[in-house]
Amino acid sequence: MSESETQSNQSRNQQDLPVVLIHRLPIFNFSFSTRLQTHFTLVDPLLHSPEPDSIHSFLSRHATSVSALLCVGPSPITSQTLSLLPSLQIVVGTSAGIDHVDLIECRRRGIIVTNAGHAFSEDVADYALALLIDVLRRVSASDRFGRSGMWPKYGTYPVGSKLGGKRVGIVGLGSIGSEVAKRLVAFGCSIAYTSRKKNPAISYPFYANVCDLATNSDVLIVCCALTVETRHMINKDVMTALGKEGVIINVGRGSLIDEKELVQFLVQGELGGAGLDVFEKEPDVPKELFTLDNVVLSPHLAVLTPESFAALQEVILGNLMAFFTNKPLLSQVQLE
Amino acid sequence: MSESETQSNQSRNQQDLPVVLIHRLPIFNFSFSTRLQTHFTLVDPLLHSPEPDSIHSFLSRHATSVSALLCVGPSPITSQTLSLLPSLQIVVGTSAGIDHVDLIECRRRGIIVTNAGHAFSEDVADYALALLIDVLRRVSASDRFGRSGMWPKYGTYPVGSKLGGKRVGIVGLGSIGSEVAKRLVAFGCSIAYTSRKKNPAISYPFYANVCDLATNSDVLIVCCALTVETRHMINKDVMTALGKEGVIINVGRGSLIDEKELVQFLVQGELGGAGLDVFEKEPDVPKELFTLDNVVLSPHLAVLTPESFAALQEVILGNLMAFFTNKPLLSQVQLE
Repeated sequence: MSESETQSNQSRNQQDLPVVLIHRLPIFNFSFSTRLQTHFTLVDPLLHSPEPDSIHSFLSRHATSVSALLCVGPSPITSQTLSLLPSLQIVVGTSAGIDHVDLIECRRRGIIVTNAGHAFSEDVADYALALLIDVLRRVSASDRFGRSGMWPKYGTYPVGSKLGGKRVGIVGLGSIGSEVAKRLVAFGCSIAYTSRKKNPAISYPFYANVCDLATNSDVLIVCCALTVETRHMINKDVMTALGKEGVIINVGRGSLIDEKELVQFLVQGELGGAGLDVFEKEPDVPKELFTLDNVVLSPHLAVLTPESFAALQEVILGNLMAFFTNKPLLSQVQLE
Repeated sequence: MSESETQSNQSRNQQDLPVVLIHRLPIFNFSFSTRLQTHFTLVDPLLHSPEPDSIHSFLSRHATSVSALLCVGPSPITSQTLSLLPSLQIVVGTSAGIDHVDLIECRRRGIIVTNAGHAFSEDVADYALALLIDVLRRVSASDRFGRSGMWPKYGTYPVGSKLGGKRVGIVGLGSIGSEVAKRLVAFGCSIAYTSRKKNPAISYPFYANVCDLATNSDVLIVCCALTVETRHMINKDVMTALGKEGVIINVGRGSLIDEKELVQFLVQGELGGAGLDVFEKEPDVPKELFTLDNVVLSPHLAVLTPESFAALQEVILGNLMAFFTNKPLLSQVQLE
């Protein structure tokens, strides 16, 4: 076969492949394309029309027959975007939380939504544990102390508090929360949880009300989905119930916590500490927290490892392949 | 009974109690005295003679009949100190490592030595895990990034590496090492170890040689006792065997590692990272490490929690009570 014939064949094959629309904000790069291109024709409007207006125009002209959309990171999918895609049947998400997608509209139109599944769960759970031990034992703060050269001058650093024996309340015992629990057991913590509903297969004590969970916990680890119902669920009352020695770890979404109240509680010493990987207005971190040693501030890193991205590629590819061959999806989100 | 009679009784009772000599450097405060004083007559030379010369003189005059010594923190007990205490039968240590005690002289004279036993093991293991996740996932470094306000300007922080699946070599599978292993299992790590000898009750792979362990590990966690044999056991050859991506965590003693070589390896990028709670010349931390983001520097904090100090009090009291009543000691160190 000549070179031109090979190219022609490739071109024909490429045209025969199912089309997947890439949806992303310009700040999110899409690094999985090589592998996906062997199975799908990828259409990335940003490569044609970098401006929002021209993207809408592009979608209107070229995407009316598109059935599958791959949403990169937390790029918002509004009802307006969805209205430009009348044939859309599936939104394949690349994150654990899919609060950036208009799920009400998806449900109304019967559009399937998938998320990252378990791809990030272990890494997020590891990070939650690291933040928790860090806050209790002041690892980041003592690292600052250590590398500032202050040790010889000021002597030992204030003592922290032991993890073992702590009563940890897990807010959302899903894929991430379950991995968090598994790790906490090895550290000798006692575990309780709140969730949309009690899981009869789980023996940890269940609290229907997050305030009751906080009252009976030394630590809250927040790792549930952000929805209309869970927005600001960690509010003033929950923080008061958790108490002055209480610690909050957030690896879910910033808006699960009333951040303004959290800052007040921390600044006034009404909470023991906080480990925060997520914030309400990322990338903005409340400046009032910059000087507090009982707080660990992390720029939304809990999912970021090469291993979790490799796992994510498998989930994305698996979901798209399953969709186009009518097989069971790997990580369909239940739209209630 | 009149007040003076009560005082007289207390005074007589106090005199009848067994004598325990307190041995400490001036920088180490002794905070357990109240509880111990109900059982023992505590003699603290520092309260009488703060200068080293006069302490020696005090010991010569007042401590020749002392059989029990309580050593606070890593206060050195040299053969010279021991020579001033001809009746000494037991050194009750307050730390996990007892490398500050002249063990050869203790063994020669048949002096029993006890350490902190398991009092610190869980806290040190927790801290080792925190340091490890911190180095792999850059928690302290990203906290610096987060609180510097650089996130909005520079975007996301470099990705770290997943803990799960890592091959972790534990150097010293004693009380602390066993707690470290228990935690690592929950994170999905595979574990191997080196120790003075293979423990037939343990199923983890055993390497007699630390270099072989390093060759087959992604991470080394150093938590063995410092002895003449283990000094600088983590040397250039071990670091080379561990390799460019390898991570070293040290919660044992600074001198277990050839620190000068470690600094060279880290500065030249020949190691993946290090989490160090101990250093060769504490409180001095090598300045070359201050600017490295793949290093966590902590001022010997791994044991410092109120909970571990409460557990330590029990061990100290238990050992002294057992010694004076000829019962089995709680945490006798085997002097080989």
